[in-house]
Amino acid sequence: MSGPAVPTSAAHTAHRPPHLENTELTGGPWRRWRDVNRAVSLPLARAWLERSGNLDNLRTAAGEGDAPYRGPVYMDSDVYKVLESAAWELRYAADPGLAEFVEDTVGLLERAQGDDGYLDSHYQVAKPGERYTRLVDSHELYCAGHLAQAAVAAHRAGLGAAPRLLGVAERFARHLAEVFLDDGEGPGLDGHPGIETALVELYRVAGEERHLALASALVERRGRGLVGPHRHGARHRQDHLPVREAPAVTGHAVRSLYLEAGIVDVAAETGDTTLLRTSARRWADMVATRTSLTGGLGSRQVGEVFGERYELPPDLSYNETCASAASIQWSWRLLLATGHTRYADLIERTLYNAFAAARSADGRTYYKGNPLQRRPDHAEAVGDPRCRDAWFFSACCPPAVTRLVASLEHYALTASGHAGVPTLHLQQYAPLTLTARLAGGRVGLRTETDYPWRGEVAVTVTETPEEPWALALRVPPWSTRTFLDTPEGKDLAVTPDPDGYAVVRRTWRPGDTVTLRLDMTPRLTLPHPRIDAVRGCAAVERGPLVYCFEQADQPDGVAVDDLALPRDAVFEEVAHTDLDGLGPTVTLRTRAAAVTGAHEAGLPYRTLGGPHADDTRGAVTATAVPYFQWDNRGDGAMRVWTPLIDG
Amino acid sequence: MSGPAVPTSAAHTAHRPPHLENTELTGGPWRRWRDVNRAVSLPLARAWLERSGNLDNLRTAAGEGDAPYRGPVYMDSDVYKVLESAAWELRYAADPGLAEFVEDTVGLLERAQGDDGYLDSHYQVAKPGERYTRLVDSHELYCAGHLAQAAVAAHRAGLGAAPRLLGVAERFARHLAEVFLDDGEGPGLDGHPGIETALVELYRVAGEERHLALASALVERRGRGLVGPHRHGARHRQDHLPVREAPAVTGHAVRSLYLEAGIVDVAAETGDTTLLRTSARRWADMVATRTSLTGGLGSRQVGEVFGERYELPPDLSYNETCASAASIQWSWRLLLATGHTRYADLIERTLYNAFAAARSADGRTYYKGNPLQRRPDHAEAVGDPRCRDAWFFSACCPPAVTRLVASLEHYALTASGHAGVPTLHLQQYAPLTLTARLAGGRVGLRTETDYPWRGEVAVTVTETPEEPWALALRVPPWSTRTFLDTPEGKDLAVTPDPDGYAVVRRTWRPGDTVTLRLDMTPRLTLPHPRIDAVRGCAAVERGPLVYCFEQADQPDGVAVDDLALPRDAVFEEVAHTDLDGLGPTVTLRTRAAAVTGAHEAGLPYRTLGGPHADDTRGAVTATAVPYFQWDNRGDGAMRVWTPLIDG
Repeated sequence: MSGPAVPTSAAHTAHRPPHLENTELTGGPWRRWRDVNRAVSLPLARAWLERSGNLDNLRTAAGEGDAPYRGPVYMDSDVYKVLESAAWELRYAADPGLAEFVEDTVGLLERAQGDDGYLDSHYQVAKPGERYTRLVDSHELYCAGHLAQAAVAAHRAGLGAAPRLLGVAERFARHLAEVFLDDGEGPGLDGHPGIETALVELYRVAGEERHLALASALVERRGRGLVGPHRHGARHRQDHLPVREAPAVTGHAVRSLYLEAGIVDVAAETGDTTLLRTSARRWADMVATRTSLTGGLGSRQVGEVFGERYELPPDLSYNETCASAASIQWSWRLLLATGHTRYADLIERTLYNAFAAARSADGRTYYKGNPLQRRPDHAEAVGDPRCRDAWFFSACCPPAVTRLVASLEHYALTASGHAGVPTLHLQQYAPLTLTARLAGGRVGLRTETDYPWRGEVAVTVTETPEEPWALALRVPPWSTRTFLDTPEGKDLAVTPDPDGYAVVRRTWRPGDTVTLRLDMTPRLTLPHPRIDAVRGCAAVERGPLVYCFEQADQPDGVAVDDLALPRDAVFEEVAHTDLDGLGPTVTLRTRAAAVTGAHEAGLPYRTLGGPHADDTRGAVTATAVPYFQWDNRGDGAMRVWTPLIDG
Repeated sequence: MSGPAVPTSAAHTAHRPPHLENTELTGGPWRRWRDVNRAVSLPLARAWLERSGNLDNLRTAAGEGDAPYRGPVYMDSDVYKVLESAAWELRYAADPGLAEFVEDTVGLLERAQGDDGYLDSHYQVAKPGERYTRLVDSHELYCAGHLAQAAVAAHRAGLGAAPRLLGVAERFARHLAEVFLDDGEGPGLDGHPGIETALVELYRVAGEERHLALASALVERRGRGLVGPHRHGARHRQDHLPVREAPAVTGHAVRSLYLEAGIVDVAAETGDTTLLRTSARRWADMVATRTSLTGGLGSRQVGEVFGERYELPPDLSYNETCASAASIQWSWRLLLATGHTRYADLIERTLYNAFAAARSADGRTYYKGNPLQRRPDHAEAVGDPRCRDAWFFSACCPPAVTRLVASLEHYALTASGHAGVPTLHLQQYAPLTLTARLAGGRVGLRTETDYPWRGEVAVTVTETPEEPWALALRVPPWSTRTFLDTPEGKDLAVTPDPDGYAVVRRTWRPGDTVTLRLDMTPRLTLPHPRIDAVRGCAAVERGPLVYCFEQADQPDGVAVDDLALPRDAVFEEVAHTDLDGLGPTVTLRTRAAAVTGAHEAGLPYRTLGGPHADDTRGAVTATAVPYFQWDNRGDGAMRVWTPLIDG
């Protein structure tokens, strides 16, 4: 059983996803998210595909109806993403309704596909004869990519329909190779990347070298104007510079992130370390200058772009849910390529904050944009809603959530031959049991933890080869005082190795336990001085979780927008087993101030040293909750970045 | 000679625009802006109307060509706004080219107008038979409003073509009354206000009561869903609440501001003080919570909306040029209605900052959006440009500049019977000579000043009736130490009266001079604590001018984005007669710090009290220039709000 992004044995990567058997999430938020995924979100998603016309579009393309085309040009991609979600889900337990959806949809796709392998209901139904004529916006290859990813998922999940779905995806991919590989540069480049990583994954599953060659060509052709003109310009479509030269991520965030995932996949399979380094350099620059504290990416709603360096407004940032998912995909590939924990650190930050906040606790509604602040009135919302919605005209985000949640446990571990010793790296901490195939043999593990609510992670070896192997535990950078209990000793102070791991290398026996103790003391986090939008503020974090102040938790009469925190705030941790239907959580209480501002001459400005009234301040107790659980209890004000008293 | 918004003698207003003769701006920025208007901007605007298709659209409507319709639906309004600009301009001096443009265009409009009075080239050419069927977006009444305003300007300017243009406007207005007044609610309400104030102005000129009745009806019908559904919702189109109940400006800023101007005009002519108070209340709330330091309005590019209370991002605020112009129109009407200087204060702030910054010093290019910060790279611009542009697909802003600049001196004075004495109120200070008709007789004035560069304003009476009258000088709230020299005494400390004026009431003789001395000491301005986006920052102001730090003026190697100001900053004032083609200016130099921020774990965040490197700070000298002169010397970084050292 394997998950997303599994390099071939010939690939140049420091780590690999271990082959897993009998994986079971036994509790914690990951399990909760997956249970909601199956019970609520996927049935709703299937209903929305019917209601919004996605499936009717394909039926018309298959000649099985005459419904006119509905929705944006990339409606097919939503079908593929739900298919992919279903494929991953069906590994855990049977679900006749879900299995039937897969069977039916695969059949529909087979019938809708053209004889030459082309498949895109928008162009087949609404714009016959115009295929590949407006690639800057058409999403034809983007949709093909999601088709391929669904097929790869079905294959890795061992579904019965997998060969047929792979057949559809391969026929389309071979058609694409004829058009875009055999005929010079072909008609151009898709304005929305995504096909690149999908073709590499298809190559990994199907073995067809031309899939990799096409992925590589599409990556290398960027930056030469082949996307075609667009009103937002070439930067917006990542077509302003060749990928080997571009110093930074630019333009539309999701497009940029999907492209980077493809670049790393191509580099891994071709062994092109120069290409890999350019992507890793952009990743580091993005993290240093364009990443919200929650891991969210994309500072502007207009154009859905990254924005400038350090442009990170908490209220207006877009932080699209798809960008969070795409960021995790890119980081995962860099983690495999390099083995460095920095990539798993960002996955964790993004997953537990920007990504997990996108869906409501009940699994029914979604944010596309994930701001870090909502003001009390939020009546001026236009365009994207400022509350979660059940579905969207452009519905890319909901199935981006379901497909990642359905494959979550695959991001928990990597394997390597670290220093010549077979090593299992625990990248993320969740209660689970599993059996993994290491170079030395089968390893069984049972991880028991109340993470992210508590910092203890107990890993018990339940099955082991006789030869020594190493267990490497990622030490998150926020845990500055970390301890380890091993069979050799207790309370060992941890200094991570250069790649960020606490490594226990030994000959194991079943029953041996290693316990990692991470420091979960709540902390105040300050922004870099160039982040103008949150100057003079701090954020509350605890372990991997970013906290926020929601109006629902504050005392009567205390507005979230008036709160200010002392620099020496001490937080009282209060555990809840199920706070208002959110499930388990830990809230944080602290003394704070409520500030009342003064106006001068009717304006919200006053002269320093002028004859104005001063701001006034009163003592209050403020309560913070994890950001990922926000907006499940009414639509009041929320803020992550909170003013510090006197800056 | 009169200007925009002249109430009838029956109107209920505290002040009135005095009837002026022989007005002449003798220098200063107003004169400079108007000279550029005539020499550069208006010829370019006329060329753009030809090049963009605005005039061709009307020719096709007139049956004089077959050019297909080009541009957005409101292309006619740009023609009307350039016509209005030309009308005001032609009062000052002959200009055969401009006069010919007016004559030709009036003729074209006469020929394009339908027999029933309807005139809208978009609907006549591109959508025949669909008039009034999509009022939420059609701008049909909005365009009619700009036609009326052009006709009123031509009339007040005494142009030869005025009767013909008034005829076109009146025929259209009578047609509108038949459709929207005689037939119940008619087809609905225009999604873009503007017609309301225009109809009142047309009523003032033409005397037709039905124009006023229709304006009043269109105002009162708001808030009842008559605009029709729009994806941005009823708030965006000011149709969520009746205007008598709405507590705050909402939605699309320009739409909201135009509507308010119409509300005040209707209230003035009908004597409806309740209606007036609702608008004044919204104005006060807008000023207190949604106004940029520059007077700019509209915090979000998406939807071009006001945004939430205190949502005032310096970098992302839209602050549309049209909103600045519309704000001045609303404030001018409230100033006339109430006589209170607070409205003239906002006019001044808006005029010298948000509005004046919109056009380049050479008169050739414009901003639509007027942010208070530009980061060094600004490569991520999408949608609206982050540099000025020569013209726009949606070209509302350039002619909004030319028409206001062409009528600027009319905002300088009001007249009243203040406390039973004929009073001339100087609302704005510019070097000019004029003769005004007061209740008591003709008054001649010569104002000599180097304002806004210096705070001395010398007003000499050149002609006077024998009876006493009063000269009332607005005292801006930023001048906290203000002195007056009068024939009765020198260095009199000024305490403004409750309406904000320094009043000199006496019997005058020709040659009498009053000199007002305003305090132009540079000052640091702090934001209200609820303005999250500029917390911990200060802005530099001097007199009515907001200053900014542009990269061009800083020492080599000192980035604007690294600057921080001491709370006790002292500014050295440096006067220039022509700084790099900007014309006269005063720059401000101060000691400051350059801050270099530290990163932790690759992210732009760090733990308070954690083991990170601290930010470092070096001493530098920083130079600020008036914001309205920014971006005339390269496209580097700019910021108005600058961090204070240690918040």
